[in-house]
Amino acid sequence: MDIRRYLQEKKEIVDAALERYLPKKEEFTLNLHKAIQHSLFAGGKRIRPILSIASFEAVGGKGERILPFACALEMIHTYSLIHDDLPALDNDDYRRGKPTCHKVFGEAIAILAGDGLLTEAFRLMTNQPPGDFRSSDGGVILDLVNEVAQAAGVSGMVGGQVVDVESEGKGVDLPTVQYIHARKTGAMILASVRVGAKLGGAKGEILNALTRYGESVGLAFQVVDDILNVEGEAALMGKKTGSDLFRGKATYPSVLGLEESKKKGRELVRMAVDALKPFGPEADPLREIARFVAAREY
Amino acid sequence: MDIRRYLQEKKEIVDAALERYLPKKEEFTLNLHKAIQHSLFAGGKRIRPILSIASFEAVGGKGERILPFACALEMIHTYSLIHDDLPALDNDDYRRGKPTCHKVFGEAIAILAGDGLLTEAFRLMTNQPPGDFRSSDGGVILDLVNEVAQAAGVSGMVGGQVVDVESEGKGVDLPTVQYIHARKTGAMILASVRVGAKLGGAKGEILNALTRYGESVGLAFQVVDDILNVEGEAALMGKKTGSDLFRGKATYPSVLGLEESKKKGRELVRMAVDALKPFGPEADPLREIARFVAAREY
Repeated sequence: MDIRRYLQEKKEIVDAALERYLPKKEEFTLNLHKAIQHSLFAGGKRIRPILSIASFEAVGGKGERILPFACALEMIHTYSLIHDDLPALDNDDYRRGKPTCHKVFGEAIAILAGDGLLTEAFRLMTNQPPGDFRSSDGGVILDLVNEVAQAAGVSGMVGGQVVDVESEGKGVDLPTVQYIHARKTGAMILASVRVGAKLGGAKGEILNALTRYGESVGLAFQVVDDILNVEGEAALMGKKTGSDLFRGKATYPSVLGLEESKKKGRELVRMAVDALKPFGPEADPLREIARFVAAREY
Repeated sequence: MDIRRYLQEKKEIVDAALERYLPKKEEFTLNLHKAIQHSLFAGGKRIRPILSIASFEAVGGKGERILPFACALEMIHTYSLIHDDLPALDNDDYRRGKPTCHKVFGEAIAILAGDGLLTEAFRLMTNQPPGDFRSSDGGVILDLVNEVAQAAGVSGMVGGQVVDVESEGKGVDLPTVQYIHARKTGAMILASVRVGAKLGGAKGEILNALTRYGESVGLAFQVVDDILNVEGEAALMGKKTGSDLFRGKATYPSVLGLEESKKKGRELVRMAVDALKPFGPEADPLREIARFVAAREY
């Protein structure tokens, strides 16, 4: 299969759905809507929504039921980027070559745009059309929303971010780096895979296999991000590379070295692909996404 | 009935439930937990959770099913206060006589504590015990979570906050003040009343009556807040009074004058109590809460 074409096709589906699902523009809150649009359509690869769709389809899920979740995952990811970029946190002026939300709209609107995106993600996931599958599958949907909240919350992404912020410049050890990565990036990527799988009806061994896949892909993603931060080209990353090192951020290269980190990245991709043994070609997109994550240059 | 005693009893129930529902402390994220505790147990009156309980019980609801929602409403309220107090927004150093979250824990942790509380609120509401009423009532719970997200999001509290921030120092008109108040404070108070009513089984005219009550109480609450800000005693409010006026904030007194605003507050309380005509003594707590809101001095 052509993974770049697959990613492009799914990205277009996700982008169109995001446009549809965003709250309607109001004159009074125009800057809020502009700030949300600015960050949500800033060239993201839509890896989390695409993982949820690929996982949903790998277990036989069909149709558009996955799209509210796919879009909510991207909205939560985007809110986390907006808040991470704030002066009080990473103080980044650029992301993917564009000025960050607070540079364009000011800090107050950036904080509120993040708050708004996070809240709208939960509105979207719980906004299931009555008569569709609300009454019969309400419990299933509730469980999925709960899983996303868990991954995004104090024991997940927010917790990882706190430890990341507090570890800056401290020369942390491998367990701390693993703690941060598993929560800050890993938890939401794992949730993306599991939400797709569960909505598609996966249970037992099939769900376990996809969980192992999601854990490995999530970590691989962050290890590769760390490596790219050290050696990537500024033009491709759209922000100053080497900035993690400069700040004394907790990263794999800083505790394992560059070569060992690359080995770790390749090992995680292999583990991800291995976890998919129970599947045939229906899981090819998941396999190729894992390989793509390791090979990407941006 | 003794409203102060009622409020105290319910507050104790809510406080105990909040302690139970908060995520377990982890060594790695100790400051995050401390920051959340600091703001969540800073002397709040628990008006939103108590309104949801009073409304639930007024329509015949029994037991503790309302408590996850009651606590989630307070967690969302608290996150909004933490973010509102940030230097980029209201830049308040004190709230209820205590230093604000960012003054104690720094801006980064305050932003993340707010994010964490908002996310945990949704985790809590969707964390319904299986076998209890998840499978049968999943659709009902989904609808309630959706209503809360709507009230807290871009068309609700976050939207109101954006217009509030952007109106500062601009000498706004009454429609703008009404827009801000209906969303920034009103939406979540209305949602508190409606969530309690719906979970208790209210439909049709009963739900409509409680909706009218919630709308009036929500506005009354904000009008009285505005008045207290102008003339309250600094010691009672725990922050510098008159600060809204000083900043050119959009308030009722600034567009209607103090006397007219007081009249408006009394009228809204009367409307709230009038809306409860279909109810007998089971709605006395709701009636007394409306009167209490107007009479409070802190």
